[in-house]
Amino acid sequence: MGTESAFLKNTWYVAAWSHEIAADTMLARTVTRVPLLLWRDHTGRVNALEDRCCHRAAPLSKGRREGDRIRCMYHGLLFDATGRCVEIPSQEFIPPAARVRAFPVVERFKWIWVWMGDPHKADPSLIPDTHYLNDPGWRGLPDYMHYDANYLLITDNLLDFSHLSYVHETTLGGSAKYAGIRPTVSRSARGVHVERWLIDEKPAPFLQKLKTWAGNVDRWNIYEVVLPGVLLMDSGSAPTGTGAPEGRRVDAAQFFSCQAVTPETERSSHYFFQQLHAFALDDPGVTASLAESVRAGFLEDQEIILAQQRVLDLDPDAPMLAMRMDTALASFRALLGKALADERAAGTTGGAGAPGAAGFAER
Amino acid sequence: MGTESAFLKNTWYVAAWSHEIAADTMLARTVTRVPLLLWRDHTGRVNALEDRCCHRAAPLSKGRREGDRIRCMYHGLLFDATGRCVEIPSQEFIPPAARVRAFPVVERFKWIWVWMGDPHKADPSLIPDTHYLNDPGWRGLPDYMHYDANYLLITDNLLDFSHLSYVHETTLGGSAKYAGIRPTVSRSARGVHVERWLIDEKPAPFLQKLKTWAGNVDRWNIYEVVLPGVLLMDSGSAPTGTGAPEGRRVDAAQFFSCQAVTPETERSSHYFFQQLHAFALDDPGVTASLAESVRAGFLEDQEIILAQQRVLDLDPDAPMLAMRMDTALASFRALLGKALADERAAGTTGGAGAPGAAGFAER
Amino acid sequence: MGTESAFLKNTWYVAAWSHEIAADTMLARTVTRVPLLLWRDHTGRVNALEDRCCHRAAPLSKGRREGDRIRCMYHGLLFDATGRCVEIPSQEFIPPAARVRAFPVVERFKWIWVWMGDPHKADPSLIPDTHYLNDPGWRGLPDYMHYDANYLLITDNLLDFSHLSYVHETTLGGSAKYAGIRPTVSRSARGVHVERWLIDEKPAPFLQKLKTWAGNVDRWNIYEVVLPGVLLMDSGSAPTGTGAPEGRRVDAAQFFSCQAVTPETERSSHYFFQQLHAFALDDPGVTASLAESVRAGFLEDQEIILAQQRVLDLDPDAPMLAMRMDTALASFRALLGKALADERAAGTTGGAGAPGAAGFAER
Repeated sequence: MGTESAFLKNTWYVAAWSHEIAADTMLARTVTRVPLLLWRDHTGRVNALEDRCCHRAAPLSKGRREGDRIRCMYHGLLFDATGRCVEIPSQEFIPPAARVRAFPVVERFKWIWVWMGDPHKADPSLIPDTHYLNDPGWRGLPDYMHYDANYLLITDNLLDFSHLSYVHETTLGGSAKYAGIRPTVSRSARGVHVERWLIDEKPAPFLQKLKTWAGNVDRWNIYEVVLPGVLLMDSGSAPTGTGAPEGRRVDAAQFFSCQAVTPETERSSHYFFQQLHAFALDDPGVTASLAESVRAGFLEDQEIILAQQRVLDLDPDAPMLAMRMDTALASFRALLGKALADERAAGTTGGAGAPGAAGFAER
Repeated sequence: MGTESAFLKNTWYVAAWSHEIAADTMLARTVTRVPLLLWRDHTGRVNALEDRCCHRAAPLSKGRREGDRIRCMYHGLLFDATGRCVEIPSQEFIPPAARVRAFPVVERFKWIWVWMGDPHKADPSLIPDTHYLNDPGWRGLPDYMHYDANYLLITDNLLDFSHLSYVHETTLGGSAKYAGIRPTVSRSARGVHVERWLIDEKPAPFLQKLKTWAGNVDRWNIYEVVLPGVLLMDSGSAPTGTGAPEGRRVDAAQFFSCQAVTPETERSSHYFFQQLHAFALDDPGVTASLAESVRAGFLEDQEIILAQQRVLDLDPDAPMLAMRMDTALASFRALLGKALADERAAGTTGGAGAPGAAGFAER
Repeated sequence: MGTESAFLKNTWYVAAWSHEIAADTMLARTVTRVPLLLWRDHTGRVNALEDRCCHRAAPLSKGRREGDRIRCMYHGLLFDATGRCVEIPSQEFIPPAARVRAFPVVERFKWIWVWMGDPHKADPSLIPDTHYLNDPGWRGLPDYMHYDANYLLITDNLLDFSHLSYVHETTLGGSAKYAGIRPTVSRSARGVHVERWLIDEKPAPFLQKLKTWAGNVDRWNIYEVVLPGVLLMDSGSAPTGTGAPEGRRVDAAQFFSCQAVTPETERSSHYFFQQLHAFALDDPGVTASLAESVRAGFLEDQEIILAQQRVLDLDPDAPMLAMRMDTALASFRALLGKALADERAAGTTGGAGAPGAAGFAER
């Protein structure tokens, strides 16, 4: 229940922030238990190769950039950006099997997306819209956390915001009233949509540092979590009445949040996130305070999730009892379960990347 | 041989010292691989709940006391002292299955005893008599060690005092003469009784710091180790002749030791102990010296037991060769093996605690 | 592919350097997952006993030397140098099974060799010739590294020197030209023979610190790796022409290297090595510089091998693609595979050592 041993492969995962891959660096990052080498060629395009030489499994990330090629610095095999071996010391013949997998990559709005499955199915139009991440109408700071926990424990957390009242009582959340509200949950094509309104209440603790109103506010969290674990959220607060679902959001503090949970292994995860604000754009203090509040809140999440993981480790088969608040969570896990079953049934979750598999020009 | 993978459930385990559970604290402690939350209600009674919320397995020990109730601070479920869920945010209906196990608890003579199996079988009269722990006629200091080893390696140690001559040569033991003595071993209802006399010998090293005699002494160790791993020992030394089995123990240094070994997991254990003295009651220096000697000695035990565990880890199935000195140890392991087999055969080793399962008023 | 779960038993393993076993010490060292106690008796002979008491598996290395006997300091059993138990506290009768395995040991040229299999097959003539280690015509310093990696990843490394151009580009290796040369590989009785010549090239970086020549040199590496993992290598450089295969090695820098890889467990290894030089014998600076260069180079090996092990841990069954440069490596692995299969078929890989099994007088 708490963990899954297989990973969805035919899907886009966020593997890195754009700024993590400088022109001359090589980033090693494991995604779905596959070691990846992420690097930027001379055109600036990011490539993802399996970070395991086809010869003796040495990681290419310990190797050397030679222009747009990567040399394994164990025995000297040289690979081009498509993963094809182009040079083998002491032999002329290069067998066709001498290649490492190349994974389709799309760099879009500061995130590096990789496709871990069948490259022919890698359709960039499936990438969720995160344009907020570099929209001039929004401000925010990028952040990252590494988790020693299964990634589904993190998506569980994102799918049930009733935890705001308890885990984040003095930070992102507020009173128990928030947990008492039933969100509207619906299923989308590849995700779950959640909408939650808190009407006529004091602004949340973190918000009180950002903006002052004379009276109470209406607060909304409207978001989708799409497979494999990407949260896109419109949230905010506005004076009571103007904020309400049918309101015009006058004098609002409006936010957008992009978050991505990526499995590293069965027992560890990457967590990329950025909370953006659409008000006080000229006040870097607001941007900094928001980022600080979000990080503080996400450390609260991490503490309870790691504790949960340790409890599950004692008895991985311990039953969990579904509550009404789990509607979104259960819906997402069911969606994922079906996607995994479909993928297993189709039996086409990978294989050696075809030449040029990495070829999405977009950035 | 060296370890057992199943734990006896229908038995009382020592889970904590009374002083570890203050009025306003929550103690997390794992017993037989089950995470427990130990806490004291407003009447002072200690309760033990499974430290895993029935909802998403978050530990309740990360939660909040609300009077005599515990709120899970992940999603806000509230539990009463019997483990029954009494509040679920955003829903009125509380399903009967919404509960965490409550374990029978008895607080007696400074030890917190928990019953990990069928609560209906939890008979407090089965708890060994450790009244010495707070008898005004005795003095001693409570102590605890955590072990990264299977608990049976510790009970093995307690059941064969021939190790005193080697592990504790300069502390609790003394010459090899001690190891040369054959103890009298007999089986009791739920344990093994051991009696050992060393006649006309110099006082043990630790004892020389506590009391002076003109000549040699007779030394006795008379103890029982009862399931699952509780040692109760009458020991001491008195001038030769007065100490001997039939002696009157005149001018004796008399001790009583209460020790409890509790499995945390297959590979880790809790060890609670207190050595008490019945002489020099008004001399806190004697109490301190005794506690210090015992701890120093038990660290010697720990060093050899951890080394033994590491050797066993290399080959868990390595044979062990029984010696005559293993009579008590073998008897105890046989007793435990039979109790485990009986429990497996009966198939009634737990299940959700019935309401009020924790209800032993005694303290 | 990357690791093997069984170890060759009927073979000599290097377990220690002679200087690690002082007259009054006991060295604990695990070889092929068997804990060993190595110690030197009053005649100076080294003995190897299983470092696990036959009674309760306590390590004898935590015990006490009593002349040429070892007392287990858990419960006092006393063992002679053949592993026979000669004293059991509190009992007269010593059962024949009361013994720990003794392993054949040969101390030769500063290395302690142990035979982990059937003692009757332990033929000292099978020990490779490492007389260079204390030949007055050679100078070098002994060294050791512990590896958290399977031992075959280290022997792989030794069997393919094409890595010199990449792993050791600025230390032991040099230009990519070295990797481009095809070595001559042939199989010997219990090993693989490799010969490699680099003609008319600048001296290797480490060599430039040791000796100066007016022009280029010819460089040779002629070595054998014998089961289970012992490298014996004639290497060196001499002015171009005089160095070449048919040359007379005039004004040469000539080296001999003895290296032994010994499995500790499936996932950890011992690595013993000494590089010796036959020129500048009176210059301790050359000896020190050589030892320093070798250690620096071997740390480069360790870095890539540990990285390789971590990649393999993510997917132990990941395929490896054999290259021409793997001829020696593949040959060695095939030889080992056959030896392991033979051993399994014969089913005679150990058992309790016969009395006197340790009896090789040679030192």
